[in-house]
Amino acid sequence: MTTSFSPGLDGVIAADTKVSYLDVDQEQIVIRGYDLIELARRVRYADVAYLVIHGALPTPEQSKAFQQTLAEQADLPDEMYRLFDLMPKSTVAMDALRTGVSFLAGFEPPDLIADNSHEANLRKGIRLLAQMPTVAINAYRALNGMPIVRPDPSLGYTENILHMVLGQRPTPQALDAFDRIHVCYIDHEMPASTFSARVIASSLADIHGAMTGAVASLKGPLHGGANEAAIQMLLDILNKGGAGKAESYMMTKLRQKARIMGFGHRVYMKKYDPRALFLRDYIPALASQVPEGEELRAISETVEMVMKREKGLFPNTDFPIGLLYYLLRIPVPLYTPLFYCSRAAGLVAQIVEQHDDNRLFRPRVIYSGPRGLRPPQSRPTRG
Amino acid sequence: MTTSFSPGLDGVIAADTKVSYLDVDQEQIVIRGYDLIELARRVRYADVAYLVIHGALPTPEQSKAFQQTLAEQADLPDEMYRLFDLMPKSTVAMDALRTGVSFLAGFEPPDLIADNSHEANLRKGIRLLAQMPTVAINAYRALNGMPIVRPDPSLGYTENILHMVLGQRPTPQALDAFDRIHVCYIDHEMPASTFSARVIASSLADIHGAMTGAVASLKGPLHGGANEAAIQMLLDILNKGGAGKAESYMMTKLRQKARIMGFGHRVYMKKYDPRALFLRDYIPALASQVPEGEELRAISETVEMVMKREKGLFPNTDFPIGLLYYLLRIPVPLYTPLFYCSRAAGLVAQIVEQHDDNRLFRPRVIYSGPRGLRPPQSRPTRG
Repeated sequence: MTTSFSPGLDGVIAADTKVSYLDVDQEQIVIRGYDLIELARRVRYADVAYLVIHGALPTPEQSKAFQQTLAEQADLPDEMYRLFDLMPKSTVAMDALRTGVSFLAGFEPPDLIADNSHEANLRKGIRLLAQMPTVAINAYRALNGMPIVRPDPSLGYTENILHMVLGQRPTPQALDAFDRIHVCYIDHEMPASTFSARVIASSLADIHGAMTGAVASLKGPLHGGANEAAIQMLLDILNKGGAGKAESYMMTKLRQKARIMGFGHRVYMKKYDPRALFLRDYIPALASQVPEGEELRAISETVEMVMKREKGLFPNTDFPIGLLYYLLRIPVPLYTPLFYCSRAAGLVAQIVEQHDDNRLFRPRVIYSGPRGLRPPQSRPTRG
Repeated sequence: MTTSFSPGLDGVIAADTKVSYLDVDQEQIVIRGYDLIELARRVRYADVAYLVIHGALPTPEQSKAFQQTLAEQADLPDEMYRLFDLMPKSTVAMDALRTGVSFLAGFEPPDLIADNSHEANLRKGIRLLAQMPTVAINAYRALNGMPIVRPDPSLGYTENILHMVLGQRPTPQALDAFDRIHVCYIDHEMPASTFSARVIASSLADIHGAMTGAVASLKGPLHGGANEAAIQMLLDILNKGGAGKAESYMMTKLRQKARIMGFGHRVYMKKYDPRALFLRDYIPALASQVPEGEELRAISETVEMVMKREKGLFPNTDFPIGLLYYLLRIPVPLYTPLFYCSRAAGLVAQIVEQHDDNRLFRPRVIYSGPRGLRPPQSRPTRG
């Protein structure tokens, strides 16, 4: 079968999956049979991660054991902390994370690295889920001359993440919002990073390689970089006059045909991203805790209003999350690495599924270059 | 448009390209308009790399300047050699290469890393082409307690590669065969590694990330690992009785339905891979230089005969290359890393092309899991 060409594989089916699905008609993000927003309302991240990876919500005993495993495996080999010191200080946080994930493969027994069985993949994948935040956050800290914060095994999974980011224990309010954001990002069908991971895994390459490729993909400004771009624009408006100038700022940007990140989505098209609709309710309480919070909230509302009026576009989840991360006092260069950390559970599940029923990805192309050229007859020395 | 589901995107068109094409009807591998086999006959690797990257064969002046650039940029920052020392000795060579490629990003200026323009991509891509063999070979040497061999800027591009592998200058005969193998591997339309690189690049992630993902993909036993698997089988037959036992060995394997690597190809199906047909002619001369060479050659011929008779399958290029690399005294764990090094030029060209006319890869899925599940009403503590 050779089908017609659809750039970006727009509308092409690339996998048969039981992990997650965007039901555009019902405007629902389905995660292992559940509505993602209901999960974000009622279930904490570690349990949703268990669901995504194992296919069912945990019993209280399973939940406790899973969180204990995550806590026990969260620290890193000493060589990783020395690797951070070898990285030039200008290294981008996502590049440091990409290198770190790849480097971790060497610390698994070679037999386990080569083993793509369901059980082996779960073992490696859950360890990666445990270690990702420690790599992401401490790479950033090391590159910025901040002291390393080792994971605290007495803390819960997302509590530990905020603890390492902030260097102190988060308030219950901050933790509650952060945990829900983490749930909202946990999986999302077949974005480019998940697709990258599956294509890599399909040569029977190992889970560390597939997770590394997903970091590389998520770094792109069209993908994981969008939450950073969204807050940067709000901060730019704040610096250039605040909420009173937001409308004229946006109209100028739109006249210049600038790309506005955090709005619209290939799959949702012109509907509201359900995650954005859910998470915006957490903005007011956090905004009141931060000096510039109310002004940023007012700016974000004007931006949203202008985008809807002028372009018919609604925010996607990166728009409120960019603002929420900022209100949580998370350094902007950590936004995309933290997005990756929340997505790690989904990636593990998708890679396991790919290996469990694999078919090598090997599409074809349209060739539009020349044909029939002949090289010169003379044969130069080799080498 | 939503098409029917084709597992592995078999037969699906994923890109419009001017880089390379498998013309199955004419049994020709097209590289920038040329027949790959004619290039392998007449043009050395460095010039074919120039062609693949720039779109036209170089003039003598361009050729000289290109090779000078490659020679000047072949060495690595000192931190890379220290990184090799941090890796556990059991680290797989391809994993070390993957980590190394990712790590190199930190040594580019951040503005250049974020710049996906045609010119910036060429600059970064050509430096990666220059550095890949140095990373691949010296990572392997360091992990195996062998002394580092720094690149020698007085040597040609592929001569330098063999020099670093062997620790001494290659014979003209060895260099000639190795350079042609390097040409044969330079690009091949849209295998999983190239596809991985394009999917990663499509989020506007940078060329270092896309090249890292391609290492991850090529490592898989269904892809780059095939040349290693091919020679391992020949050596297994050698150890279990030699050429006289080759037929019964193969018949047993086939009865056991074992997967025989180095035969058949998704796209070629049941035809001879033109690269394999071309390269097999280089086996006899090299076989005569190595004590077990003639026996291995005889074994390989019997294996080929049995596979054709019993399964109707012809060798793909990994089958003769596995044997040729062995006859060239290249350590087996370097086969896949060296395959990657030859493919690096093709990958750079494909990533540049993706960025020059980008569309984010974002396919859809078939969801075959449950629907309508409801989480418990009780809301546990967050964290």
